[in-house]
Amino acid sequence: MGSKAERVQEAVREAIVEYQELNDSNVQVVGEEPSPLEFMRLVALNRPCLIKKGARNWTAVRKWNSKYLSNVMRDEEVEVAVSPLGNADAPVKTENGDYWFVKPLDKTINFVAAVEHIKMEEASAEQGPHVQYCQSQNDNMRNEYSPLLDDIPRDIPWARIALEKTPDAINFWLGHSKSTTSLHKDNYENVYVQVVGSKTFTILPPVETACVNEQMLPTATYVEDSEGRLVPTLDDDPSPRPFPLWDPDQPEENASPLSKYARPIVVTLEPGDMFYLPSMWWHKVAQKCGEEGICVAVNYWYDMNFNGSLYSLEKMAQGVSWALFQEEGDQRREHGEKQEL
Amino acid sequence: MGSKAERVQEAVREAIVEYQELNDSNVQVVGEEPSPLEFMRLVALNRPCLIKKGARNWTAVRKWNSKYLSNVMRDEEVEVAVSPLGNADAPVKTENGDYWFVKPLDKTINFVAAVEHIKMEEASAEQGPHVQYCQSQNDNMRNEYSPLLDDIPRDIPWARIALEKTPDAINFWLGHSKSTTSLHKDNYENVYVQVVGSKTFTILPPVETACVNEQMLPTATYVEDSEGRLVPTLDDDPSPRPFPLWDPDQPEENASPLSKYARPIVVTLEPGDMFYLPSMWWHKVAQKCGEEGICVAVNYWYDMNFNGSLYSLEKMAQGVSWALFQEEGDQRREHGEKQEL
Repeated sequence: MGSKAERVQEAVREAIVEYQELNDSNVQVVGEEPSPLEFMRLVALNRPCLIKKGARNWTAVRKWNSKYLSNVMRDEEVEVAVSPLGNADAPVKTENGDYWFVKPLDKTINFVAAVEHIKMEEASAEQGPHVQYCQSQNDNMRNEYSPLLDDIPRDIPWARIALEKTPDAINFWLGHSKSTTSLHKDNYENVYVQVVGSKTFTILPPVETACVNEQMLPTATYVEDSEGRLVPTLDDDPSPRPFPLWDPDQPEENASPLSKYARPIVVTLEPGDMFYLPSMWWHKVAQKCGEEGICVAVNYWYDMNFNGSLYSLEKMAQGVSWALFQEEGDQRREHGEKQEL
Repeated sequence: MGSKAERVQEAVREAIVEYQELNDSNVQVVGEEPSPLEFMRLVALNRPCLIKKGARNWTAVRKWNSKYLSNVMRDEEVEVAVSPLGNADAPVKTENGDYWFVKPLDKTINFVAAVEHIKMEEASAEQGPHVQYCQSQNDNMRNEYSPLLDDIPRDIPWARIALEKTPDAINFWLGHSKSTTSLHKDNYENVYVQVVGSKTFTILPPVETACVNEQMLPTATYVEDSEGRLVPTLDDDPSPRPFPLWDPDQPEENASPLSKYARPIVVTLEPGDMFYLPSMWWHKVAQKCGEEGICVAVNYWYDMNFNGSLYSLEKMAQGVSWALFQEEGDQRREHGEKQEL
């Protein structure tokens, strides 16, 4: 039967495989918004759902383009995340083989300048060196982007009624095809609405936590050096935080012993599509621009319920994965060197 | 940091303790039946709820007593579970220290005779030797007890609408205070209605699976010997099945290394009370009789959803517990001998 740890790993693998047998390998697609009860059934299952053209009548979906946005927002200063390769909030391999969790350089600039820069970067054949992404994820729709707030609903009625709460954050996203979001998870019920361009989510259910190879990474931030280059720099308090090293699009690299059992689901949102991404699902996001060279989306984050069985069982799955697979710093560096990127 | 197995056990313990911090240590009590949406919120949380006097207007609650039941059912043959100590479907320690999972002897007798026997047993100061319990759990309300079916709803409307299904089984229970149900779990959403007497559930959430010390027990059945004594007898196919050896009312005995972290919740149902026991909750049941010396209840079992995250994460928790704590036969016997009952 092997050691206890081997038996534990096998139990985790069996639960992952059984989940895949019991569940669709695709995201459910519906043509109309759900009722609160229908949505609550999805929340109970913790299963995603694509509501095709669910937001087709939103003013944002009908009107937002580069000119409209620049006109409404012409006097506004906004925060942009700057990174060398579009990889904001991502694990980055350092020269000695260690991985750091590196956050973008945040800059505040005029919105019109941000849009023009993003369009210019999209049109350029070259990568970087400074990729800008409006992605502040801090309820920015109700703050710096409030001039646009009348173009979207203040909340999602079926989510508000089902969950008995208003959104904790409404976020505006504006970027281009070089910006990506690394595999991560959020403790939110997420209703995501694509407005301009398309967005592709690669997602894994919580039960596949052991596949993502979360390791403890020191935290760092991109800082501009004297020549304007972005250099990852350890934070004053670089206390390590767990972050997935595995990338479903590079499945051979940085794999945990169970990564090969993951069955990532890919779903693409077109303008007007709404997507329910349940809490604690791992997701990686890529995007394509509309004809103007921008990609725009809005999302609503509703706090998940931390009581009940689901959250604690997922925490157990995560803790078991860490116990099985987290490496000490030295092992991780060695592991990184063996699998040169 | 200890061995991997020790770190896994610590991760399981932490998730159990965090669940207890995040959740009430009591069952929520409400005064009215929920709407389908309110019920679906409970299902999503996998949290129990006592609906005080929720069935107060049911004909069953108003009319059922020994005379009424015997009159309606006077011509019916019913199945009764016979066990020496009221311990049907329970782990029983054999002479050599092994535990077996022992099922009751099933007998088919006239309903009136069953009621009279149960009343006689309740009135007797002595235990057994033959405790009878009408508890066949095979949708008996819609079969052998169908003459009583008009006295209860055909389903629970808020459960049917929320879950989009009719009950998989409706069960009639009639016993006395010497009958108990050992700690176990069901893959059903359970709506339990107390009719006569009271019933006390001692329950543990799925996240506490590692506390119940499930071991693989050979299956056996009580068989009457030539002198009429009930003797546990291994089944023709005694293939072991997992069953909890730990009893929350004897917490020092047959404990797993994590049993001491369990926080059992106790809830008592009085006549007319409805109780939602979510799927996969461990539960042990004891009962007290009404003044006539019988205890009567009805329950509705709705199939749980096996897709979605909750079922598979619970299976993972269970598999991890087995990997950590299941003993080989010899170890189990030794363990049993150390903790003589």
